[in-house]
Amino acid sequence: GFAKVDNHRDLRNGFPEVIYCAGKTASEVEAIMTEMLKQDNNILATRASKELYQQVKKIAPTAVYYERARLIMIEKEVIAKTKSKLLVVSGGTSDLAVAEEAALTASALGIKVERLYDVGVAGIHRLLGNLDYLNEANVIITVAGMEGALASVVAGLVDKPVIAVPTSVGYGSNFGGLAALLTMLNSCASGIGVVNIDNGFGAAYLASTIILQLEKARKEG
Amino acid sequence: GFAKVDNHRDLRNGFPEVIYCAGKTASEVEAIMTEMLKQDNNILATRASKELYQQVKKIAPTAVYYERARLIMIEKEVIAKTKSKLLVVSGGTSDLAVAEEAALTASALGIKVERLYDVGVAGIHRLLGNLDYLNEANVIITVAGMEGALASVVAGLVDKPVIAVPTSVGYGSNFGGLAALLTMLNSCASGIGVVNIDNGFGAAYLASTIILQLEKARKEG
Amino acid sequence: GFAKVDNHRDLRNGFPEVIYCAGKTASEVEAIMTEMLKQDNNILATRASKELYQQVKKIAPTAVYYERARLIMIEKEVIAKTKSKLLVVSGGTSDLAVAEEAALTASALGIKVERLYDVGVAGIHRLLGNLDYLNEANVIITVAGMEGALASVVAGLVDKPVIAVPTSVGYGSNFGGLAALLTMLNSCASGIGVVNIDNGFGAAYLASTIILQLEKARKEG
Amino acid sequence: GFAKVDNHRDLRNGFPEVIYCAGKTASEVEAIMTEMLKQDNNILATRASKELYQQVKKIAPTAVYYERARLIMIEKEVIAKTKSKLLVVSGGTSDLAVAEEAALTASALGIKVERLYDVGVAGIHRLLGNLDYLNEANVIITVAGMEGALASVVAGLVDKPVIAVPTSVGYGSNFGGLAALLTMLNSCASGIGVVNIDNGFGAAYLASTIILQLEKARKEG
Amino acid sequence: GFAKVDNHRDLRNGFPEVIYCAGKTASEVEAIMTEMLKQDNNILATRASKELYQQVKKIAPTAVYYERARLIMIEKEVIAKTKSKLLVVSGGTSDLAVAEEAALTASALGIKVERLYDVGVAGIHRLLGNLDYLNEANVIITVAGMEGALASVVAGLVDKPVIAVPTSVGYGSNFGGLAALLTMLNSCASGIGVVNIDNGFGAAYLASTIILQLEKARKEG
Amino acid sequence: GFAKVDNHRDLRNGFPEVIYCAGKTASEVEAIMTEMLKQDNNILATRASKELYQQVKKIAPTAVYYERARLIMIEKEVIAKTKSKLLVVSGGTSDLAVAEEAALTASALGIKVERLYDVGVAGIHRLLGNLDYLNEANVIITVAGMEGALASVVAGLVDKPVIAVPTSVGYGSNFGGLAALLTMLNSCASGIGVVNIDNGFGAAYLASTIILQLEKARKEG
Amino acid sequence: GFAKVDNHRDLRNGFPEVIYCAGKTASEVEAIMTEMLKQDNNILATRASKELYQQVKKIAPTAVYYERARLIMIEKEVIAKTKSKLLVVSGGTSDLAVAEEAALTASALGIKVERLYDVGVAGIHRLLGNLDYLNEANVIITVAGMEGALASVVAGLVDKPVIAVPTSVGYGSNFGGLAALLTMLNSCASGIGVVNIDNGFGAAYLASTIILQLEKARKEG
Amino acid sequence: GFAKVDNHRDLRNGFPEVIYCAGKTASEVEAIMTEMLKQDNNILATRASKELYQQVKKIAPTAVYYERARLIMIEKEVIAKTKSKLLVVSGGTSDLAVAEEAALTASALGIKVERLYDVGVAGIHRLLGNLDYLNEANVIITVAGMEGALASVVAGLVDKPVIAVPTSVGYGSNFGGLAALLTMLNSCASGIGVVNIDNGFGAAYLASTIILQLEKARKEG
Ligand SMILES: Nc1ncnc2c1ncn2[C@@H]1O[C@H](COP(=O)(O)O)[C@@H](O)[C@H]1O
Ligand SMILES: Nc1ncnc2c1ncn2[C@@H]1O[C@H](COP(=O)(O)O)[C@@H](O)[C@H]1O
Ligand SMILES: Nc1ncnc2c1ncn2[C@@H]1O[C@H](COP(=O)(O)O)[C@@H](O)[C@H]1O
Ligand SMILES: Nc1ncnc2c1ncn2[C@@H]1O[C@H](COP(=O)(O)O)[C@@H](O)[C@H]1O
Ligand SMILES: [Mg+2]
Ligand SMILES: [Mg+2]
Ligand SMILES: [Mg+2]
Ligand SMILES: [Mg+2]
Ligand SMILES: [Mg+2]
Ligand SMILES: [Mg+2]
Ligand SMILES: [Mg+2]
Ligand SMILES: [Mg+2]
Repeated sequence: GFAKVDNHRDLRNGFPEVIYCAGKTASEVEAIMTEMLKQDNNILATRASKELYQQVKKIAPTAVYYERARLIMIEKEVIAKTKSKLLVVSGGTSDLAVAEEAALTASALGIKVERLYDVGVAGIHRLLGNLDYLNEANVIITVAGMEGALASVVAGLVDKPVIAVPTSVGYGSNFGGLAALLTMLNSCASGIGVVNIDNGFGAAYLASTIILQLEKARKEG
Repeated sequence: GFAKVDNHRDLRNGFPEVIYCAGKTASEVEAIMTEMLKQDNNILATRASKELYQQVKKIAPTAVYYERARLIMIEKEVIAKTKSKLLVVSGGTSDLAVAEEAALTASALGIKVERLYDVGVAGIHRLLGNLDYLNEANVIITVAGMEGALASVVAGLVDKPVIAVPTSVGYGSNFGGLAALLTMLNSCASGIGVVNIDNGFGAAYLASTIILQLEKARKEG
Repeated sequence: GFAKVDNHRDLRNGFPEVIYCAGKTASEVEAIMTEMLKQDNNILATRASKELYQQVKKIAPTAVYYERARLIMIEKEVIAKTKSKLLVVSGGTSDLAVAEEAALTASALGIKVERLYDVGVAGIHRLLGNLDYLNEANVIITVAGMEGALASVVAGLVDKPVIAVPTSVGYGSNFGGLAALLTMLNSCASGIGVVNIDNGFGAAYLASTIILQLEKARKEG
Repeated sequence: GFAKVDNHRDLRNGFPEVIYCAGKTASEVEAIMTEMLKQDNNILATRASKELYQQVKKIAPTAVYYERARLIMIEKEVIAKTKSKLLVVSGGTSDLAVAEEAALTASALGIKVERLYDVGVAGIHRLLGNLDYLNEANVIITVAGMEGALASVVAGLVDKPVIAVPTSVGYGSNFGGLAALLTMLNSCASGIGVVNIDNGFGAAYLASTIILQLEKARKEG
Repeated sequence: GFAKVDNHRDLRNGFPEVIYCAGKTASEVEAIMTEMLKQDNNILATRASKELYQQVKKIAPTAVYYERARLIMIEKEVIAKTKSKLLVVSGGTSDLAVAEEAALTASALGIKVERLYDVGVAGIHRLLGNLDYLNEANVIITVAGMEGALASVVAGLVDKPVIAVPTSVGYGSNFGGLAALLTMLNSCASGIGVVNIDNGFGAAYLASTIILQLEKARKEG
Repeated sequence: GFAKVDNHRDLRNGFPEVIYCAGKTASEVEAIMTEMLKQDNNILATRASKELYQQVKKIAPTAVYYERARLIMIEKEVIAKTKSKLLVVSGGTSDLAVAEEAALTASALGIKVERLYDVGVAGIHRLLGNLDYLNEANVIITVAGMEGALASVVAGLVDKPVIAVPTSVGYGSNFGGLAALLTMLNSCASGIGVVNIDNGFGAAYLASTIILQLEKARKEG
Repeated sequence: GFAKVDNHRDLRNGFPEVIYCAGKTASEVEAIMTEMLKQDNNILATRASKELYQQVKKIAPTAVYYERARLIMIEKEVIAKTKSKLLVVSGGTSDLAVAEEAALTASALGIKVERLYDVGVAGIHRLLGNLDYLNEANVIITVAGMEGALASVVAGLVDKPVIAVPTSVGYGSNFGGLAALLTMLNSCASGIGVVNIDNGFGAAYLASTIILQLEKARKEG
Repeated sequence: GFAKVDNHRDLRNGFPEVIYCAGKTASEVEAIMTEMLKQDNNILATRASKELYQQVKKIAPTAVYYERARLIMIEKEVIAKTKSKLLVVSGGTSDLAVAEEAALTASALGIKVERLYDVGVAGIHRLLGNLDYLNEANVIITVAGMEGALASVVAGLVDKPVIAVPTSVGYGSNFGGLAALLTMLNSCASGIGVVNIDNGFGAAYLASTIILQLEKARKEG
């Protein structure tokens, strides 16, 4: 076939196979999934439209669709959640799609996830009134559009890995998320690792590699 | 001569004539200044090098030079300070040149100026511990480089005009101040008017137009 | 819920709550508004489509829709207009949506607003023949697309705060409003504070912070 | 040799050969000039440093150097000036280098040239008080840096070909002349032909092609 | 009303009023046109959709629509064509919309127009085999997309004013016409005046200002 | 007619005429094709929609449509395949449209083509396990979106001409293929010639000019 | 004083105070350092020139200078190294300055650091022959200029957090590191957190936040 | 040591080792060269300053320096020139540095090289009068700055692989070679492979991979 399914991921138990649906025809996605369904792994499809989901359901009746996050999930095996905690912080309601892509992906990867939403810096008391969330997390994902200053403020408050996801929320000189991206890359607060604009998936994946190390460290001592 | 000195500014009493020195030869600046010195106005020269100052001193012995801010000032007439207050807030020591250009220009324009420096968001307690400064000002200028998030946080805390000056402090994807500029233009906190990168002068000038209105309003009631 | 309604604004009496509708689903807007309607504040929703308005009307029958400006307004309390005057100047008919977003938002914020439209520099006599408007205002918003030179010309004629809104009107090397934005940031006329491309709302909000100070100054003397 | 001297220009009598000196070593310029000096044409060298001029003088003792415009001229034959008039208008003193490159090049091409300098839009009365200059010209070159709004205002006042030269004068979001370039390309006033940033030479050359046509038209009727 | 019809153009006899339709609602265009129809000038509407034309026809039954060029023309008075000739040269069939906008606008402005289409540099023999066209013109407009090299080649062959119109034809790193725009601005061949991407109208307008001068010169001698 | 069909290509036997359909109306394509069909050459139409194909079929019943690659082919004469081999390597399934445009165009140009798809660097074992493909090819086209690192890795493994096609697959800071384009231009591995984003056609054409030389060299010795 | 030394970092034992020297005058750095030296913390100064070091030595005689990395270090207290390991991987010798800034900073933060240098993808066997390094690390920093493909290849080989630092090594369309930055943000391999161009310090700081969590997890179990 | 000398290139007999000197200290270059000198390969160092050469000469007395091209060459073994011919075409004298980097590198790689310089499109007769050069080459490298149209014209005249090198020659909206780069990527003439701005080395290397294939094809038949 035209696609080579990547097997190097099953080193990690229960780690799902992932399909990026954008730019693929529905029948291409179907063909790839058919191949994957022969294995026992969970499957995650990102950037999936509702139409695609309807079609996927025919070959995978247990598939679940998360509309806001545009994710399809097929869980063959329930994964126990990690002891380490991931916190997903977001600026505004308009960032919800990306924040949920991150939170749900992380959950699918077996991570314990908390959410702290709508705490953008336009009203900083909303963040300062919730410092407990920050203190209890091991890793933090900040999701913010417009100017993306939330990442700087969060990283300035903690000494933990902060993964920053700029979103394309905004208009004009926002240039499709460029403004928030540059903010996060140039933050005067250190300790921020940035992923692509709107890449909630990638942020969750990076968080999972950190938490995988944490869980190993717990065992090893 | 090659230059037409602009007289429309003397409508406002004591308002200084301003020369932008970048891209002018020393003898051109001298010629313009000679022309201006025939009037009774104060004179302000921005982006002036130390060498230029040495030469200016010969024709204007009372000229004062502010090295960090690259300003030359010739005060013919002492201007009484306004009742309304301007606060200049800056992110870090590296932004000092621009912050001082703003503060000194405003002072030269007759405005009462306060400074709150080195309160960038990397350690937000430094700003939150100084809210009194914000509360007592009528107009606030925020000067910040790198990602420029300071403007958003300040504007989120007050309901006053905030003038934001991005600086070129930073490197890499900062792109000479573009990162901070876009941050300030796309702020999720409303009430911010942005000026050009490193334009401390322009910020002070805009502040002065607001405070001119305020002083008039005080008189008119 | 997913949204934290921001209460720090009711410091200022009658100041409306604001919802930015772009990137929110209709049901999310509805949920936020339902929360807000429990309070006595006026409500303003920007970037609202006609479809959204139809739905909002069901829960807020007194809501008014301004189609050109894409604004929904719910006035619970009539606000007395300020003594200070705001003038909204625009370049061409194509800039009307943004100019009206600014004028109507300012009005909703309780500001006395005048309009001077279609006075772009292609025929500068239209502006020069209306200097009275400029002279009588306390604050001026200039709205212009294409090359946005209007802001420079206006700021060159007055000694008042000029808030410049670049619009995305134009094509080709206009790059979605970038041309007008850069014009306004680099103006050879001082005294201009720039907001984001098409951000009529933000310009009005900044104007309101200035006028709020003016009204206080009138009282304080 | 490494360079092929271009002869197709002598169709036009007395039209000078032109060397663009940037990026050429002094000995390369010398070699090209030696070749050209065998012909009877006038010679113009643009972007020439003072050091280069010193060296050129050795092989061409009549060479004249215009420092501000960075031009070397070698006139073998005096060209009669045209009846048609070119006006060079500039915004500020900092634009002088480019304005003079244009004016002196045009002169070298045999064109009658007038200058109207330092009439930028920050004080528009300086331009409006000199409309006679605009009315008497056949072609106008506008030279302006910063936001370059001068071109729009001039083109809005006349029905003549306006050649616009953006300059790199400015800083920050000026991006080396990009701001003025975009302004001129997006002008709401029609009738503007734009050349490259700082390209005074090119503007004069384009003006000369127009005036060449005008002189022919005068003869043909 | 919201629009101020610009009368300064009737200095030139028969010169049409021009409406830029993009970003205006149909009823706004209608209102402006109704105002214009009270005068005796011809009317030209650019960037007009077919739907808009249907509506315009109701108030101006003699209006003609040029679909490829998206122009509506209302000729009240037939204008005699000029003696001077304009040549419109284009690179490929995909540039036809812009080339026709230029050619038809120039025609509406009373100019004698020739066309030489589909002579892009990919097959340079097509241009070299048609040098007569170039030789007989007084002014040349070159319309080209993709890399826009046509303008350089044409300007290298003639000593006439060349107006270059980059088009947005192309894809990828063409960036909506930016590639062709930069080509034209940086041409190694001198004598090119550049207008905005896809601005066939502006090119024709600039050509008309040159030809207006030519016609005057013919009369004056 | 408006289009000048380019005949200089029939120097090479059986080489197809090529039409770029984007930006042409269906009737324009039809007119050009009608002209071409009078000759004996094969015809290739790129960027063709299914609708266009339906219409083309009416005048050229033997036309074949490749939907994924958006190509129409009319083969009048079967061309023997070359001895030299072209390998088309692609990163992911989302790049299929561009990879197939390249592979099918090359085939239509008479070249022997192999495909190695879905071997992106996210799982580099997929490429390393297929080195035979690389070793047996004379020329390699690499097609990759997102960050386009595949081109560097391939060029680092072979000493053959590598033609790199960035695709617009991706989102956010991918900026429509810019990320992959810059990667390919700045590759630390030498021996890469880059074509425009998504330009599978151009890559195949360049490959064909190389292979044409190879076939000649085989004959000449 | 003008600077507010930030104390919130001493939560973490032995964690050094950090000064960013770019854009500060030597006497400003000295003043800040004098303040810091009153505490018991280690001190790290980044982007420090040799001249600055000479001056610092006078007030801090134990200061050590790392020329290639432009770092000054003042160790008051020796910090025990962590059990968790950081690997710094770099593409070429030209990236050494940034790689060493990362490695030395991490060391100063108490982290056990390994180096794997000069393994860029132009000769991928150099990386593939050293997989042990990758397997034994807990966190990996990849430093690469030009096209920066190294980050993708590394992240494709491991399931660990990869921190990617683009460098400004390169020229032309590299645009000062933009090419490598975009590569890293758009990587088809997941699990990459990106920091600013040339920001070796920031990468090390982020790594330290991860390893701080790891060390805690080892203790907690 | 810090550098891993890459041996995979000696597959090709006599092929030189290459060092990119930019961003390396002199002692780093020396260390790498010392390592290389232990082998029998020829050595090529690009982007080398004269100062570096002086130092290299001490350890490699036979090293030759080409100043214009900034190349150091150490030939241990004379390589026979290929039968296939490479033509290097350049636009103007200012492009000489890059053209010579290409020509000399190709020569060092054992390729027979011809030069056709100073034939830019501003005077296209210079190119058209030298078609023999184009006809006799197997591969063509075109080197051009400013707008870079030369590549399109050459590729439109031949059916051979054309490698295009944009140079940074120019100013203003040339943006350091971006204008020529985009021109070459968007050429309406097919068959062009583009390398990085000023990358004469890379163009020669790519040409050598093609000619290596040609020489093999001659032998294989
Ligand atoms: N059109 C607009 N452009 C920019 N900011 C806006 C706009 N409308 C509302 N806002 C701001 O966005 C905030 C609300 O954002 P949200 O909580 O996402 O609805 C308001 O408090 C305003 O400050
Ligand atoms: N300052 C300038 N800017 C743009 N083009 C120029 C300039 N000076 C000369 N030229 C053009 O460059 C050509 C000479 O280029 P060259 O053969 O490289 O010396 C002349 O024929 C002019 O058309
Ligand atoms: N296609 C066009 N591109 C650029 N400018 C145009 C175009 N069509 C008309 N204009 C200019 O826009 C002006 C009308 O603008 P408006 O008043 O907004 O309709 C006219 O006077 C023309 O100078
Ligand atoms: N997809 C494509 N991308 C770039 N160039 C193309 C493409 N398809 C065809 N061309 C070129 O465009 C020329 C035809 O252009 P046109 O005459 O406008 O149809 C052909 O000769 C090809 O060289
Ligand atoms: Mg932190
Ligand atoms: Mg506020
Ligand atoms: Mg003013
Ligand atoms: Mg005009
Ligand atoms: Mg010419
Ligand atoms: Mg290779
Ligand atoms: Mg990985
Ligand atoms: Mg060709």
